[in-house]
Amino acid sequence: MEQSYRLVIRCPDRVGIVAKVSEFISAHQGWLTEASYHSEPASSAQQTGWFFMRNEIRADSLNVSLDEFKKRFAVLADEFQMSWFVTDSCVRKKVVILASHASHCLADLLYRWHSGELHCDIAAVIANHDNLRSMVEWHNIPFHHVPADKTDKSPHFHKVDELLQQYAAQTIVLARYMQILPGEICNRYSGQVINIHHSFLPSFVGANPYYQAYDRGVKLIGATCHYVTEDLDQGPIIEQDVGRINHRHNKEDLVRLGKDVEKIVLARGLRYHLEDRVVIHGNKTVIFD
Amino acid sequence: MEQSYRLVIRCPDRVGIVAKVSEFISAHQGWLTEASYHSEPASSAQQTGWFFMRNEIRADSLNVSLDEFKKRFAVLADEFQMSWFVTDSCVRKKVVILASHASHCLADLLYRWHSGELHCDIAAVIANHDNLRSMVEWHNIPFHHVPADKTDKSPHFHKVDELLQQYAAQTIVLARYMQILPGEICNRYSGQVINIHHSFLPSFVGANPYYQAYDRGVKLIGATCHYVTEDLDQGPIIEQDVGRINHRHNKEDLVRLGKDVEKIVLARGLRYHLEDRVVIHGNKTVIFD
Amino acid sequence: MEQSYRLVIRCPDRVGIVAKVSEFISAHQGWLTEASYHSEPASSAQQTGWFFMRNEIRADSLNVSLDEFKKRFAVLADEFQMSWFVTDSCVRKKVVILASHASHCLADLLYRWHSGELHCDIAAVIANHDNLRSMVEWHNIPFHHVPADKTDKSPHFHKVDELLQQYAAQTIVLARYMQILPGEICNRYSGQVINIHHSFLPSFVGANPYYQAYDRGVKLIGATCHYVTEDLDQGPIIEQDVGRINHRHNKEDLVRLGKDVEKIVLARGLRYHLEDRVVIHGNKTVIFD
Amino acid sequence: MEQSYRLVIRCPDRVGIVAKVSEFISAHQGWLTEASYHSEPASSAQQTGWFFMRNEIRADSLNVSLDEFKKRFAVLADEFQMSWFVTDSCVRKKVVILASHASHCLADLLYRWHSGELHCDIAAVIANHDNLRSMVEWHNIPFHHVPADKTDKSPHFHKVDELLQQYAAQTIVLARYMQILPGEICNRYSGQVINIHHSFLPSFVGANPYYQAYDRGVKLIGATCHYVTEDLDQGPIIEQDVGRINHRHNKEDLVRLGKDVEKIVLARGLRYHLEDRVVIHGNKTVIFD
Repeated sequence: MEQSYRLVIRCPDRVGIVAKVSEFISAHQGWLTEASYHSEPASSAQQTGWFFMRNEIRADSLNVSLDEFKKRFAVLADEFQMSWFVTDSCVRKKVVILASHASHCLADLLYRWHSGELHCDIAAVIANHDNLRSMVEWHNIPFHHVPADKTDKSPHFHKVDELLQQYAAQTIVLARYMQILPGEICNRYSGQVINIHHSFLPSFVGANPYYQAYDRGVKLIGATCHYVTEDLDQGPIIEQDVGRINHRHNKEDLVRLGKDVEKIVLARGLRYHLEDRVVIHGNKTVIFD
Repeated sequence: MEQSYRLVIRCPDRVGIVAKVSEFISAHQGWLTEASYHSEPASSAQQTGWFFMRNEIRADSLNVSLDEFKKRFAVLADEFQMSWFVTDSCVRKKVVILASHASHCLADLLYRWHSGELHCDIAAVIANHDNLRSMVEWHNIPFHHVPADKTDKSPHFHKVDELLQQYAAQTIVLARYMQILPGEICNRYSGQVINIHHSFLPSFVGANPYYQAYDRGVKLIGATCHYVTEDLDQGPIIEQDVGRINHRHNKEDLVRLGKDVEKIVLARGLRYHLEDRVVIHGNKTVIFD
Repeated sequence: MEQSYRLVIRCPDRVGIVAKVSEFISAHQGWLTEASYHSEPASSAQQTGWFFMRNEIRADSLNVSLDEFKKRFAVLADEFQMSWFVTDSCVRKKVVILASHASHCLADLLYRWHSGELHCDIAAVIANHDNLRSMVEWHNIPFHHVPADKTDKSPHFHKVDELLQQYAAQTIVLARYMQILPGEICNRYSGQVINIHHSFLPSFVGANPYYQAYDRGVKLIGATCHYVTEDLDQGPIIEQDVGRINHRHNKEDLVRLGKDVEKIVLARGLRYHLEDRVVIHGNKTVIFD
Repeated sequence: MEQSYRLVIRCPDRVGIVAKVSEFISAHQGWLTEASYHSEPASSAQQTGWFFMRNEIRADSLNVSLDEFKKRFAVLADEFQMSWFVTDSCVRKKVVILASHASHCLADLLYRWHSGELHCDIAAVIANHDNLRSMVEWHNIPFHHVPADKTDKSPHFHKVDELLQQYAAQTIVLARYMQILPGEICNRYSGQVINIHHSFLPSFVGANPYYQAYDRGVKLIGATCHYVTEDLDQGPIIEQDVGRINHRHNKEDLVRLGKDVEKIVLARGLRYHLEDRVVIHGNKTVIFD
């Protein structure tokens, strides 16, 4: 992958933002390989319009250092009240994966990472069961078994929290983790914790969504990749997809068929996140894919 | 379309049903052009298993009249405690469509009927607005404008009910009718009233599902074709499908894109119903497609 | 629909294009409601990289007339060797539809136009059969029956050509026209003639694609919306989609199921074209959706 | 998985087959858990109609041994000129996978097998590169590196053939094997060799289908799982699917996105085969899913 800088911006909309930003990039010889824009008009629910922007700039084209580029851009950003960041495509995010005993999402992520498809460092896998250890360790990734006692989960979360800090986790992936992360952790890693829910949200919130789907007699099952917030299954949605089922499928079939949807939805959602293609705006996302 | 008889059966499961039924058909020289079976095993939620069957038999192959065939089959059906019926593919169901002012589902059904794709008689269209009259009348179908007074809808429903009886409606299609049909009518035409709901149920029950979808930030919108029961949007689902959306789509785009999903889902669902491919079982459906 | 100007650009890629163009727009107080970019890097097959851009600007935000805007932009365009155009969203393209006797695509387009979903003027429908006259005339659109003699089609094409000129056609839609348009017409209306082919091209080029699909035993059927060039079924593809089939479907089922795919693919493709979202580049398209 | 016997039948169509077969099963107390039928009418291309049938019978319900059941059924089968077989769901097919250096399809199959989703024995993996050894051996499956010399591939195929016999392969999966299997092997294992081709056949036969797809500018890419015959990429198709692409995707993106389609299509196709859900009929398949 060619090295590039990703400049991602969110600010109140007004005339001239694109001009100013692209002029700035051009003035520093920045060669755009991708540029995406989105504006959301003012409405009854939202008094000002909002503007979103993602620029991907060839690293070797800039005539100043990245630090200098950022320092200068900050002035412009202030003028437009931007929330913004720049990332370097060659600096891989540190990812910690939380799992339970179900292997399909974890195995899929590990494979994609191992084959070079997911650009990140998987710093560690933490699970409340030990059955996935060998699979993880084959990939030369540290595995931590942190049991969760149903009567008191606080020691579990305390240890998880400690490990997240120890590994300096930047992105946390709940790969069918099946535990409700404490609000404190959700908030500390706000916009950095990604979950895969095994239903087409907002249908079938909570436990056993495939069983709920079976009982309701739906004709499609789905999966949802979303950011985790304090409100269970209510965070901003990154990606969703569905698969067709019919009356011949029993509950076990739904679970089996759902796995393929979950895997692909989580992998797509995580990819968007790792490539800085997601801008969170309230409880929704802008995805510059 | 070649004339055929459709024998549809539902009964408690046990050994030998297929044998007995197909032996019976064969003994009357019946040539099967389609035969579909489904069995649902007993479970914790359901004490007996159930068996479902649909046979399509060439009308010209039987060596007795249809009446005689039915009379004889009734004996067998009793033995197996079957609920069952036989229909003649050449006897078209009388369909009455209820609409409001939105035209997309109605226009789609009318086109499919006019081009010979939907095998039924559209006896009449009833709407609480008058704007679709010309479109309906071009197809030589009676159009009835029955206004609905928001403060008292009973005269509307009274008139609708009268028309349904006058036209001897066998199937009632709510093509974006936007009124909640009284329980009495739902029950009288139980299993014969088909609605299209403009969301992927059970998500976004009730009013304005596209606005709800927009506000939740989902990445797919859907539509659901279901039988109408007294419980709003809770009846047995016949068909569902979805379409992809993204952050660039506003509420109006969702409405526009959703129309194509609604049309196709309603058309598929109605087709299954008209071809006697649907067996209702509790709050779910078996679809022999 | 709010009035907007669409500025669409194609030019060799280099640093600073976005900056210059957006600076120009901003200098004229242009408020961007949409802005899309694409760059295609140089490769072994293509010596220079190419840059593509589409800007949608609120008409009421510009501080000069559209003519003046264009005049001034031409100077910038020259500097960057751009091929470009600006259209006004309120100036509807004049569309002539060519059909044969199959009604599904035509009926679908007429409905979408009639319900305000397709922003264009349908100037006329020309067909080599007369059976669709009543449907077209109900929409108050002129219908011309121009028979095609199999032994000599030149009088047919001569008349069609005459009508296209008479109606000042800007976009020509072949809605299952089933005739091979003469190269001369293809070339005169280059990039303006849109066809729907009833297969997933490049599979099943030529006649009877559904029969070819049936014989090959494929599990999906498709449709392709593409610009017409002199080479049959080889022009730039605008949109494609597929539908699932199985062994129970016979040839007639494929034809029936395919209709729904054709309609939606043609409608999407035409919409992209009418909204100036398509840039043709060699034998491919960039779609700014 | 509950033990069951699968009785799969193909024969010329006539009245009474279902009756006779189900009567036979019922007479032996066979409890049907699944029963699927298909008839293909006579046509201009096919003088007789054909009948296809798959019955899944609870093993513990039969009142005779499987051998006795087969012996008795042979008499009936003769009468109807059936080609038929019975398999035991608990006797796992011996599968040998042939690979090259691409890992995605292989890794996916190994994962599904390891997690209990694919009911078969993977007897061995044979590859003409050595890079996948560690992944295979982690699963405790023998790995054979059999290099293929471009100037003379016969030693390679000779060794492969030897290994297939040594492992008593019943099903051979070409998981992106990238070699053209000699006709002799294709014929010996007729109906038992499954390939995944990385295009939506019949589009893009032969080498580099993604590059062909890129150059043609298609809007969907696909994959095809099919039985291998002597004619390259022409064998009976088991399963196909597609994924959406656009102008922003370069050739490498197509390869990456295609992998997910390939994996799922191969897994579905192989599952159908392993569960004896596929009946080959000429160059087409009947899939009792």
